Amino acid sequence: MLIVGAKGHAIEILQCLSPLEREQAVFFDDVTQNQPDLVLGKYKLLRTATAAQVYLATIDSRFVLGLGGPMLRLRLAKQFKHWGGLLTTVIAPTAAIDPLITKLGEGLNIMHHTMVALSARIGDGVLINAGATVHHDTQVGDYCEISPGVRLLGRCQLGMGCQVGALAAVLPDVVVGDHVVIGAGAVVTRNVPAGSVVAGIPARPIHHSIK
Amino acid sequence: MLIVGAKGHAIEILQCLSPLEREQAVFFDDVTQNQPDLVLGKYKLLRTATAAQVYLATIDSRFVLGLGGPMLRLRLAKQFKHWGGLLTTVIAPTAAIDPLITKLGEGLNIMHHTMVALSARIGDGVLINAGATVHHDTQVGDYCEISPGVRLLGRCQLGMGCQVGALAAVLPDVVVGDHVVIGAGAVVTRNVPAGSVVAGIPARPIHHSIK
Amino acid sequence: MLIVGAKGHAIEILQCLSPLEREQAVFFDDVTQNQPDLVLGKYKLLRTATAAQVYLATIDSRFVLGLGGPMLRLRLAKQFKHWGGLLTTVIAPTAAIDPLITKLGEGLNIMHHTMVALSARIGDGVLINAGATVHHDTQVGDYCEISPGVRLLGRCQLGMGCQVGALAAVLPDVVVGDHVVIGAGAVVTRNVPAGSVVAGIPARPIHHSIK
Repeated sequence: MLIVGAKGHAIEILQCLSPLEREQAVFFDDVTQNQPDLVLGKYKLLRTATAAQVYLATIDSRFVLGLGGPMLRLRLAKQFKHWGGLLTTVIAPTAAIDPLITKLGEGLNIMHHTMVALSARIGDGVLINAGATVHHDTQVGDYCEISPGVRLLGRCQLGMGCQVGALAAVLPDVVVGDHVVIGAGAVVTRNVPAGSVVAGIPARPIHHSIK
Repeated sequence: MLIVGAKGHAIEILQCLSPLEREQAVFFDDVTQNQPDLVLGKYKLLRTATAAQVYLATIDSRFVLGLGGPMLRLRLAKQFKHWGGLLTTVIAPTAAIDPLITKLGEGLNIMHHTMVALSARIGDGVLINAGATVHHDTQVGDYCEISPGVRLLGRCQLGMGCQVGALAAVLPDVVVGDHVVIGAGAVVTRNVPAGSVVAGIPARPIHHSIK
Repeated sequence: MLIVGAKGHAIEILQCLSPLEREQAVFFDDVTQNQPDLVLGKYKLLRTATAAQVYLATIDSRFVLGLGGPMLRLRLAKQFKHWGGLLTTVIAPTAAIDPLITKLGEGLNIMHHTMVALSARIGDGVLINAGATVHHDTQVGDYCEISPGVRLLGRCQLGMGCQVGALAAVLPDVVVGDHVVIGAGAVVTRNVPAGSVVAGIPARPIHHSIK
């Protein structure tokens, strides 16, 4: 299986694979300069579009997204599909999720110690990072990025491409529009219009002043 | 086993059962209109007091609480006991808890990826939601509701019927009175008198102004 | 194996041992008055330096730190090493960590439902408490105390002896100096100089006014 990316989150994806899948993992990175030939001294690194296409056509067609950022993940998913790849989901062995019941899109990253409720609905390309939980009847739009420790409580809805910062909570029944950014540690108590940036307890609109 | 409730949290309870227990699960809901006959297309739904009483008397006397709200949980626990039911605890397979050592009341919901210290003491009917942890020597009163990701640190005490919001922390040695409501994301650094509503970092009394 | 401490966190350490290790656990506490002879009615309690030295020399040389506080942990690690003990790491069975790949110091406490990335680097004597996660390329200095639910995001660096409060987040790339105290629930968005105390969202310096 090809992991798209070779640093940071890509290595965390490796850590979510079963031992057998891990043995067969190969990384892709055509951007970073001076990467060693083997990732972690062991895993093959493909550096060109041609190498990736050959791998997908002749060895294993499956690829997983191994980097953050909704728009980057979407772009790379399209690119690797165009190259003949099969966008694949990774679910950590410690995750509490039942893919036979919960409605899941393709190309997910379900990281360690997460919980996704049976009645939740998760779009394509979503990243649910370590320790985050998605509770009953909650909907998460395509390519959302749910950071470590986030809590999406019952019946809330997130549009597509949202980024929810670490340890934020979205309270029950709250509706969040597309491409919303929620700051780390925020508690979202009211609906949030598309394109907003919110932060704090309770969460209020900000103008990127947090940093 | 009868799960009291058939929506929301009740389905999350199903997700905490062992495969065998899940096969035998039956739901109860005499309130919601237009529920389908089978929950998740598979599990029998009982809609009347009579149906519940027959089930408890003839098939399986065990029932678990499958909805939130301390007062509602207490009322339904009493009701189903009166009907001959045996108030039963559910512990998710991913929970780190040792029921042979920790002093546990009856009728608990111990959800996924929780940790309850060996030296903690948990009252009756308590809900400890996903990813919450109860640390050493901490006491949690009857029918408290501990939301996802909450941290109850060492030697703290919660009275009965408290509701602790998602990702709140109660610091070591803090004493919280009965029926206190703690807002999501709050950090409780001082003792809280019974009946209070507190929120924020550090937590201060509020007058329901958070929403 | 000797657990240094016999109350509070020491009992949580017991809860992280395998069943076999638990059977052989012995506690040490030469400070607390009126402790019963057996911890939890079952585990032997050593009360004197001589008893500890005899145990380490004749029964099992391994000891683990079972109490909090960076300076206290450092002092006791030195003391028990001086007595011939072997400073040992405890990793809970539910932790997602790979000690063959991640660079780990000695004498760690890796508690339940934690995640430490393959590319992280952890110093000696570090306590990573329940549900905390240490993400890719992050460095944690010697004897840091990482409280329950903390999130140390990618590429951040913590100096030695830091105390990070429950449910705090340190954002990507942030550099935190030695002996910094971060309040519970804080979101650290900027670098923090050595010796500071910070709290809040976003975290700002405080003068111990939180309590």
